Amino acid sequence: MLPLPLLDDWIRAALREDLGTGDVTTEILIPQDRKGRAFFLAKEPFLVAGLDVSVRVFELLCCDFVCLSRVRDGDAVQKGSTLLEMEGPLRTLLSGERVSLNILQHLSGVATLTRRFVEAVEGTGARVLDTRKTLPGLRALEKYAVRVGGGFNHRSSLSEGILIKENHIRACGSIGEAIRNAREQAPHCLRVEVEATTLEEVRQALEAGAETILLDNMSVENIRSAVRLAQGTARLEVSGGVTLENVRAVAETGVDWISVGRLTHSAPGVDVSMLVR
Amino acid sequence: MLPLPLLDDWIRAALREDLGTGDVTTEILIPQDRKGRAFFLAKEPFLVAGLDVSVRVFELLCCDFVCLSRVRDGDAVQKGSTLLEMEGPLRTLLSGERVSLNILQHLSGVATLTRRFVEAVEGTGARVLDTRKTLPGLRALEKYAVRVGGGFNHRSSLSEGILIKENHIRACGSIGEAIRNAREQAPHCLRVEVEATTLEEVRQALEAGAETILLDNMSVENIRSAVRLAQGTARLEVSGGVTLENVRAVAETGVDWISVGRLTHSAPGVDVSMLVR
Amino acid sequence: MLPLPLLDDWIRAALREDLGTGDVTTEILIPQDRKGRAFFLAKEPFLVAGLDVSVRVFELLCCDFVCLSRVRDGDAVQKGSTLLEMEGPLRTLLSGERVSLNILQHLSGVATLTRRFVEAVEGTGARVLDTRKTLPGLRALEKYAVRVGGGFNHRSSLSEGILIKENHIRACGSIGEAIRNAREQAPHCLRVEVEATTLEEVRQALEAGAETILLDNMSVENIRSAVRLAQGTARLEVSGGVTLENVRAVAETGVDWISVGRLTHSAPGVDVSMLVR
Amino acid sequence: MLPLPLLDDWIRAALREDLGTGDVTTEILIPQDRKGRAFFLAKEPFLVAGLDVSVRVFELLCCDFVCLSRVRDGDAVQKGSTLLEMEGPLRTLLSGERVSLNILQHLSGVATLTRRFVEAVEGTGARVLDTRKTLPGLRALEKYAVRVGGGFNHRSSLSEGILIKENHIRACGSIGEAIRNAREQAPHCLRVEVEATTLEEVRQALEAGAETILLDNMSVENIRSAVRLAQGTARLEVSGGVTLENVRAVAETGVDWISVGRLTHSAPGVDVSMLVR
Amino acid sequence: MLPLPLLDDWIRAALREDLGTGDVTTEILIPQDRKGRAFFLAKEPFLVAGLDVSVRVFELLCCDFVCLSRVRDGDAVQKGSTLLEMEGPLRTLLSGERVSLNILQHLSGVATLTRRFVEAVEGTGARVLDTRKTLPGLRALEKYAVRVGGGFNHRSSLSEGILIKENHIRACGSIGEAIRNAREQAPHCLRVEVEATTLEEVRQALEAGAETILLDNMSVENIRSAVRLAQGTARLEVSGGVTLENVRAVAETGVDWISVGRLTHSAPGVDVSMLVR
Amino acid sequence: MLPLPLLDDWIRAALREDLGTGDVTTEILIPQDRKGRAFFLAKEPFLVAGLDVSVRVFELLCCDFVCLSRVRDGDAVQKGSTLLEMEGPLRTLLSGERVSLNILQHLSGVATLTRRFVEAVEGTGARVLDTRKTLPGLRALEKYAVRVGGGFNHRSSLSEGILIKENHIRACGSIGEAIRNAREQAPHCLRVEVEATTLEEVRQALEAGAETILLDNMSVENIRSAVRLAQGTARLEVSGGVTLENVRAVAETGVDWISVGRLTHSAPGVDVSMLVR
Repeated sequence: MLPLPLLDDWIRAALREDLGTGDVTTEILIPQDRKGRAFFLAKEPFLVAGLDVSVRVFELLCCDFVCLSRVRDGDAVQKGSTLLEMEGPLRTLLSGERVSLNILQHLSGVATLTRRFVEAVEGTGARVLDTRKTLPGLRALEKYAVRVGGGFNHRSSLSEGILIKENHIRACGSIGEAIRNAREQAPHCLRVEVEATTLEEVRQALEAGAETILLDNMSVENIRSAVRLAQGTARLEVSGGVTLENVRAVAETGVDWISVGRLTHSAPGVDVSMLVR
Repeated sequence: MLPLPLLDDWIRAALREDLGTGDVTTEILIPQDRKGRAFFLAKEPFLVAGLDVSVRVFELLCCDFVCLSRVRDGDAVQKGSTLLEMEGPLRTLLSGERVSLNILQHLSGVATLTRRFVEAVEGTGARVLDTRKTLPGLRALEKYAVRVGGGFNHRSSLSEGILIKENHIRACGSIGEAIRNAREQAPHCLRVEVEATTLEEVRQALEAGAETILLDNMSVENIRSAVRLAQGTARLEVSGGVTLENVRAVAETGVDWISVGRLTHSAPGVDVSMLVR
Repeated sequence: MLPLPLLDDWIRAALREDLGTGDVTTEILIPQDRKGRAFFLAKEPFLVAGLDVSVRVFELLCCDFVCLSRVRDGDAVQKGSTLLEMEGPLRTLLSGERVSLNILQHLSGVATLTRRFVEAVEGTGARVLDTRKTLPGLRALEKYAVRVGGGFNHRSSLSEGILIKENHIRACGSIGEAIRNAREQAPHCLRVEVEATTLEEVRQALEAGAETILLDNMSVENIRSAVRLAQGTARLEVSGGVTLENVRAVAETGVDWISVGRLTHSAPGVDVSMLVR
Repeated sequence: MLPLPLLDDWIRAALREDLGTGDVTTEILIPQDRKGRAFFLAKEPFLVAGLDVSVRVFELLCCDFVCLSRVRDGDAVQKGSTLLEMEGPLRTLLSGERVSLNILQHLSGVATLTRRFVEAVEGTGARVLDTRKTLPGLRALEKYAVRVGGGFNHRSSLSEGILIKENHIRACGSIGEAIRNAREQAPHCLRVEVEATTLEEVRQALEAGAETILLDNMSVENIRSAVRLAQGTARLEVSGGVTLENVRAVAETGVDWISVGRLTHSAPGVDVSMLVR
Repeated sequence: MLPLPLLDDWIRAALREDLGTGDVTTEILIPQDRKGRAFFLAKEPFLVAGLDVSVRVFELLCCDFVCLSRVRDGDAVQKGSTLLEMEGPLRTLLSGERVSLNILQHLSGVATLTRRFVEAVEGTGARVLDTRKTLPGLRALEKYAVRVGGGFNHRSSLSEGILIKENHIRACGSIGEAIRNAREQAPHCLRVEVEATTLEEVRQALEAGAETILLDNMSVENIRSAVRLAQGTARLEVSGGVTLENVRAVAETGVDWISVGRLTHSAPGVDVSMLVR
Repeated sequence: MLPLPLLDDWIRAALREDLGTGDVTTEILIPQDRKGRAFFLAKEPFLVAGLDVSVRVFELLCCDFVCLSRVRDGDAVQKGSTLLEMEGPLRTLLSGERVSLNILQHLSGVATLTRRFVEAVEGTGARVLDTRKTLPGLRALEKYAVRVGGGFNHRSSLSEGILIKENHIRACGSIGEAIRNAREQAPHCLRVEVEATTLEEVRQALEAGAETILLDNMSVENIRSAVRLAQGTARLEVSGGVTLENVRAVAETGVDWISVGRLTHSAPGVDVSMLVR
């Protein structure tokens, strides 16, 4: 993840989005010098991610603010657990509450779902990856949450990896040609991965010397065949249609990576709330 | 929703996030002057939302681009339906694909889930509302998607409505005092809503002349009692713990509005993909 | 008003506007380590508004800076009063002076003019409101200054209230239709206000059950008739052509609110200057 | 003035400020495809400034928009004159109205006031200048409006001119020393101007070979003496306390420039409105 | 390179930097409606890079502008060659000239220097790489220019490749440990490269199974030994102290890549000017 | 130079450019709580410029950071000199290293080259000036570095000086007309300079009362003649084709200023590196 200060503009934008022209209710009803003490409470069990960002929200609203974290990113909390204790101006606590919780509930949601996938494949040697199917503006944070949950990151942007898809192959004439061109031209820091949708394409990719092959939307049976074909020469990633129900079966085929779009685009938010005293 | 051109900066930021320093694979493998023809296809049934934003992504990448929408926001599409047909430089189509789909899959997901809640309460007279539990940076778009799905918007920011919560009440001494202060000070364009967690608080709010009361996390039975108490004097919103399973029971109590955080914080993305020819 | 840190970008932009590529005179003539002591002095009587923003200007230029406020926003100062005492690098004091004063002179000007209108209607029960006729980029600050002067805020943006104007009515067919549509569709946190330019329109609005009516550019006599018509059923706002000369006559008709564009678009700046020792 | 496209970000920010999360009333009541025809009308006589920026507001909201300017910046219009005719989506016309008018009313206000000062000194040879007492964020536009009104611009930022003030002089020891240092170090494109508050200081400045002297808050009599002292060797600017009442007397002393802060910080907005048909 | 529209903000910032508050000379002396015809001329031989960005500068200032490119990026031009012909408002041509030329002279400078290095190693099989030693804000454009010159890009940011340096090794205990950790944790799209400063470290890296080794500041002799050691198992990059004088000797050792910081941090600008008729 | 805090956005943008989505290598290999001690070392002799900006890079990444400067801007350092000592989180030191060094190496490069030109003209009375041939986004910093090197700044933007070029003259009809117009219309804070390419034009400019004349690309002989022509009436700037080889000859003609584009567009970066212990 980027160092926190580099996220300040993003957090401030989130605050402006929620505050609009100001928290009218709080400005009217809460005296400016009233202090408060707030707690973030888990209302269901989950895996914590995003705590630092969540605290930073309040720090950016007000300097006169003290926070004590009771847990850390990566901790599993139970229903009723206290995550944070904070003291500061009551207005700041109330005005920053929603943005802080919105970040925490989403990132913890991503981490929690990731952890479930990771546990589902435990012992198989397969790794759970995220994808670029993220929510616009949130990618860096979501990818961080995936790591917190025990998953691994696929490329974070189109410049952080070479992935040759069907359309690229068609434009080049053949898988072999596409792989050769990519290897020839790509920055040497990036690996070249190629997508295959059939076993025939897997074969062509292997012949062309592919280092990594993405098996796109294949049946478990075909994946198993691909593993046999590739053994010892290329590493395999499975992508498409992977759920908590079928992920173990996929993992047991012996593939190296399983990428799961829903880790980021469909993770339900966790239930967390702020209590003020 | 804001006029599309006011969203351009947001869309460009999403593109920069996904492109990083550039789409290496496509730059290497696709000739600059190659044209392409792409289709957005629904891979499951859903309610469409965000199509204009989705198209704008490509328009901001390249002027030489033609698009034909086959459906409109608010249309229900079936598995296999074509949403868009586009023609333009193949590089642009491939480089803009993911950002465009990410927007469409999320907004359509929000609209689709909203529609399910709206259908669940059909005929009861209750309206489904969103909340401020949105993903940072996406609120305006998510709230638009809720409207597309047939839901209504709660306040979009803290400056677009007065909502007196427990902490505000405590700082004022009593519900009555809080309502009076809010009415006295609030801009006259905003209504004053007050939160109640018990029937006793509902009574106090009614005595204080509350116009709108938010029933926070109450049982269906208590909601029914609150409806009886409020009849004719205040309008009621239910919030907290509402699911597709219990929403109809809540609606049949006769409340006016039911607000549902998961419309925005937990809506699964729909399955939509781009096919290039 | 937004929490001060959320205004930092705006203040920094103001500083860049005034500094251009740097304060050449000061860089050439003032040694870098020279300290200074500066005072903000009122050169005429006025109502202070914007002091915190004014101080923030210097804080954003330099950390090594101490400031003592002698007055607070909302205080009336006399000619010769000291508003602030500051100590810090002389270069910072000289380079930040103009931006800081420009903010203070404008916001205090708005507050001072507002106060005069508020005093003019004292005892009548009418409230003085601002409008959206503000200077681009300054709305939030100007609306804050109006509150400091004892006025109240009309909506801060088009999303913070429903106001049905002549053109909206024409598009809907009738006042009644427009009000019904607005009520049906508007977020429940927002009140619906409708504009009327004749007594006949006031009657139609009342029949349609209007809650709030804006009387646009009416004569005092007509306003008085409208008050009689509305009694007990709708609240009334007067807008258009209100001056310090006629505002009391308007207020004595018994209307609830009087909105005054010139509070923000034509408030003369107050005379305030910085003295360095 | 900067080329219009370089102002787009500023205009878009003004639009976001006014739209908030959207023009709720218009979205609800005006059908998306309704077209409209609007006119900008002068409701009092004034000098027009800012018309291009005013039109750009609508262009940035919507491409499908046609505008016919009936007057140009610098034209004097009468009560009832039509400034612009526009055709486009009715929603765009209504949603952009206020921002567009706010810009036009302020810039025309500045130009109109400037023109009055310019007329007041006609025939004397003195020129009317603005100052850096502008509203934060609006300087470039306000300075443009001053030029439209026939005034001239003083420096637009601290980097566009050397002006030695009292505090600079004190830090250098003497007027002479300050002028020498400034000349020695300043970029050769910038003239060196020095402030004097007494005739004695004028003498010292002249002895030190000052090219331009700013007479700060002097009586007309003293200004006259300064003109006599300076004859032929330095050019003189008068600043401080200049009003429409005394500006001619000041001008007739023979000074070269008269700078007037109120041109920008206290110009009342002109009365202009939009009529839709 | 990013699609041109994603660079617009950067270009506009460059224009604001050069225009300040406006091109005073041109606004005063050139009538607004005067048209002009301008030519970009090479005043020395060089390799062209950045032409599109250079043209975009004028397009962002004014729509009414026609441009004809006579050459393309990657073309070698002679002294006196015409690069561009443009027609448009004379003010736009004069005000945009410097920014446009500044971009072109720098990027062409980078491409030209790169080409010289590329020619120097011709036939050896070694490739010339850039580094992260770029000028802040210009990296993407400079890396593009390197490609135009026939060079290849090393990672464009710290997230686009794993490079284990001395400090990383020390924190891990040994080269082997560092390589293992990196492989274990790094996104699978990124290759792992490790820096070695001695032949002993090269040996350790090879034993640890290093895929790519960066030989940091080694003598040609040591590089030759490293090539012998690595043969067939790892690919080698040379970095540090490479000049046009010694680059061929380095290349002839048989290394794969030679990275050269001066391509971007020290490339002299080429001589190009604009002629207006 | 602008006060450091006004440069923070620029520095943060530079950091984002270099970090991409994060320093993967360092995050993987360096424990979060590891502290480090780093030194900036000169690897060749140079003149230091930009140290404060260089340090600010680390301060913006992390608050928990202590830095001790061993030299100051303007100091000449030897090969092996320590410039800075820093202590803080090792991750911060490693992740900020490149951006910090990139700034320092470029600004010191500009200052060092400037110093060589300044030394070359020592004793002649001529001053070395920069130009607007700077790298986009870096002008303010580069111009600061020129001052550190003992040079002087020409205008920093088109609004900080009047410079009448050939095209302006042609549009006005004659040098005399152009000078008269410029004087008549230009802000009085700015001097008017006019470009001449022949002695005939110098004569015309002198006749028209030019205050400053820029001799564009003239031979040393012609420059000498121009000096004789101008003696006592106008000051002269030489521009075009000035190198370290010919600058002294030019200076000895007696001109006032010599402007040198290569100070900024072609200064080689100095060799400086960071050592961590």
